[in-house]
Amino acid sequence: MSNNISFRENILQIKPYVPGKPIEYVQREFGLTDVIKLASNENPLGPSPKAIKAMQEAAVKMNLYPDGYCTDLRTMVAEELDVPENYLIFGNGSDEVIRLIGQTFIRPGDEIVVADPSFVEYDFVCYLLGGNLIKIPVENFTHNLRQMAQAITDKTKIVFICNPNNPTGTMVTSSEVEEFLSKVPDHVLVVFDEAYYEYVDDETYPDSLGYIKKGRNNIIALRTFSKIHGLAGLRLGYGIAVPELIQLIQRTKEPFNANLMAQVAAMASLQDKEHLLRSRDTNKKGKEYLYKSFTEMGLEYIPTQGNFMMVNISRHSQEVFVEMQKRGVIVRTGDIFGLDNFIRVTIGTQEQNERFINVLKEILRT
Amino acid sequence: MSNNISFRENILQIKPYVPGKPIEYVQREFGLTDVIKLASNENPLGPSPKAIKAMQEAAVKMNLYPDGYCTDLRTMVAEELDVPENYLIFGNGSDEVIRLIGQTFIRPGDEIVVADPSFVEYDFVCYLLGGNLIKIPVENFTHNLRQMAQAITDKTKIVFICNPNNPTGTMVTSSEVEEFLSKVPDHVLVVFDEAYYEYVDDETYPDSLGYIKKGRNNIIALRTFSKIHGLAGLRLGYGIAVPELIQLIQRTKEPFNANLMAQVAAMASLQDKEHLLRSRDTNKKGKEYLYKSFTEMGLEYIPTQGNFMMVNISRHSQEVFVEMQKRGVIVRTGDIFGLDNFIRVTIGTQEQNERFINVLKEILRT
Repeated sequence: MSNNISFRENILQIKPYVPGKPIEYVQREFGLTDVIKLASNENPLGPSPKAIKAMQEAAVKMNLYPDGYCTDLRTMVAEELDVPENYLIFGNGSDEVIRLIGQTFIRPGDEIVVADPSFVEYDFVCYLLGGNLIKIPVENFTHNLRQMAQAITDKTKIVFICNPNNPTGTMVTSSEVEEFLSKVPDHVLVVFDEAYYEYVDDETYPDSLGYIKKGRNNIIALRTFSKIHGLAGLRLGYGIAVPELIQLIQRTKEPFNANLMAQVAAMASLQDKEHLLRSRDTNKKGKEYLYKSFTEMGLEYIPTQGNFMMVNISRHSQEVFVEMQKRGVIVRTGDIFGLDNFIRVTIGTQEQNERFINVLKEILRT
Repeated sequence: MSNNISFRENILQIKPYVPGKPIEYVQREFGLTDVIKLASNENPLGPSPKAIKAMQEAAVKMNLYPDGYCTDLRTMVAEELDVPENYLIFGNGSDEVIRLIGQTFIRPGDEIVVADPSFVEYDFVCYLLGGNLIKIPVENFTHNLRQMAQAITDKTKIVFICNPNNPTGTMVTSSEVEEFLSKVPDHVLVVFDEAYYEYVDDETYPDSLGYIKKGRNNIIALRTFSKIHGLAGLRLGYGIAVPELIQLIQRTKEPFNANLMAQVAAMASLQDKEHLLRSRDTNKKGKEYLYKSFTEMGLEYIPTQGNFMMVNISRHSQEVFVEMQKRGVIVRTGDIFGLDNFIRVTIGTQEQNERFINVLKEILRT
């Protein structure tokens, strides 16, 4: 800098995040009106109608600060999960909870073990705090938990397990996790990021909360209202862990980090089981349709436990990405995840899925 | 901890924040229905009607992630302030922008100079990053800028100037700031927190943006939508500085920190100048009423440039605080700011101000 203000140089390691392109950008860039976004794993059905109504009613009181302890929401979530209220911490999206965990525990030189590819927020937080990122390549697009366990050293602070994994959609099973945890020493924190857990239809999905409820004090589970609850725009996620961890993490959060509108909408959404079931059902049907379509098209795909999936389109994803945008469909390129010939598509409504498949067919034909 | 996970021990210095008590808490605790909160410097008129309408319309699209760059809002704010768009950074309240600044610049051992009392978020961020907090007592309840300049050493990283100052309501003038800045070496960042600047009616208020527009590269100004815009519940604040500072700070923010509802509401609110003027006018009249009432009651008060003021009630503020709550009025105690015999009251509507004065009279009579 031209001034002499020194800064925390480790932040130079942070790579800028590449977000899904907003619909408005694509409309402007290509002069389109009818654009669909299947790029950010948003719920295609929107928020729960009950949440919408609650937001509309609460709009008048947005002059008031939120309850920083999320008291009422906390009571509901605790009941829903059958954990005591002091097992929870809320954040401005689970992104923030991940940062709070980092701020609490990561000291310069600490090693952070993640899968590659996985959710990039772990990388961000590691670099932000001056940690050393240890990336363990996925095996068959899935976390290689044996390798991740072997990567643990005296310097390891956190292992992040994104389950289902973003961007691959794969999951690790309860027996894999059991074996993994038996090897984890007690100076290492294990974070299960379960943003997509409501979409999982595999019975071998691990019960991370079970470990926490039994008092295991080096495990944190993360959940969010951004995915199946359809509230990504409001930013609300939370962490679950024993109180000795939560109390420490809690120190590092700003007093009003979870906004009032998000708290109101989340409470209403929790009371709308019908919307949750409908969202899950839409996803399940969409997933089957995409599997079938990809098979017919002869495309390799990664079976998914989330609301998105990756498909190998046998040419560079940037090229297909641009061609799809011209036709009003936004997806995510695999190159940012090191999978150049894959695209990641969010499972949409049946109409959106059909449009996506038709556009993809048209492009791959040329 | 009973596990062996080491953590960043500097976070133990962080003192828990004492928020204004939510209305619902006081209703439950004292079995009341009609409770008013004059504790958190919220706009008593609520959000702009245009912002309310915009929120209600936008509720249906809260399944979508926000635009992390706040593109449209950025354009509007840049135009409003007559600065280029890359002079801005948005955060989850200006609380977050303060933390982002800390995360970017504060290294262990750096000295952070603040007034005492002033906004406690500066203390939080200093301790979070392992800085040393240098507190300079206010003089006549105002920042003592000469002492603050003298406190600058080779180790000083940031000087925070809350102007008007929360909780005292006082301000520093343009000539004081001019003199102060002439003494600040270029390894020191000066942050002007101007959360309440729209309420200022003193013509000697400094033009911090003027310095920034002239290219001064060690100054950051902070503004917020929480105060006169009446959107505290949505959490939206921003920082203004030259791009070389903004680009560095920008690295440390999460991709979706400013939520979509806040962006929508803020844009609508910026277009409602009438609500802003009405809010300012209500505050001005309320201030005059409170001055007059305190004078009649023989109470010492601190003249204010904000939407709140401190008054000396000649007994311990905790005592008066509890008595006021029993009568349905929530204020803030001065003891948390080291001013035991003062209470801080937000200037409300005329009706709220009268109720506050009547309740205060009743309590002080006993």
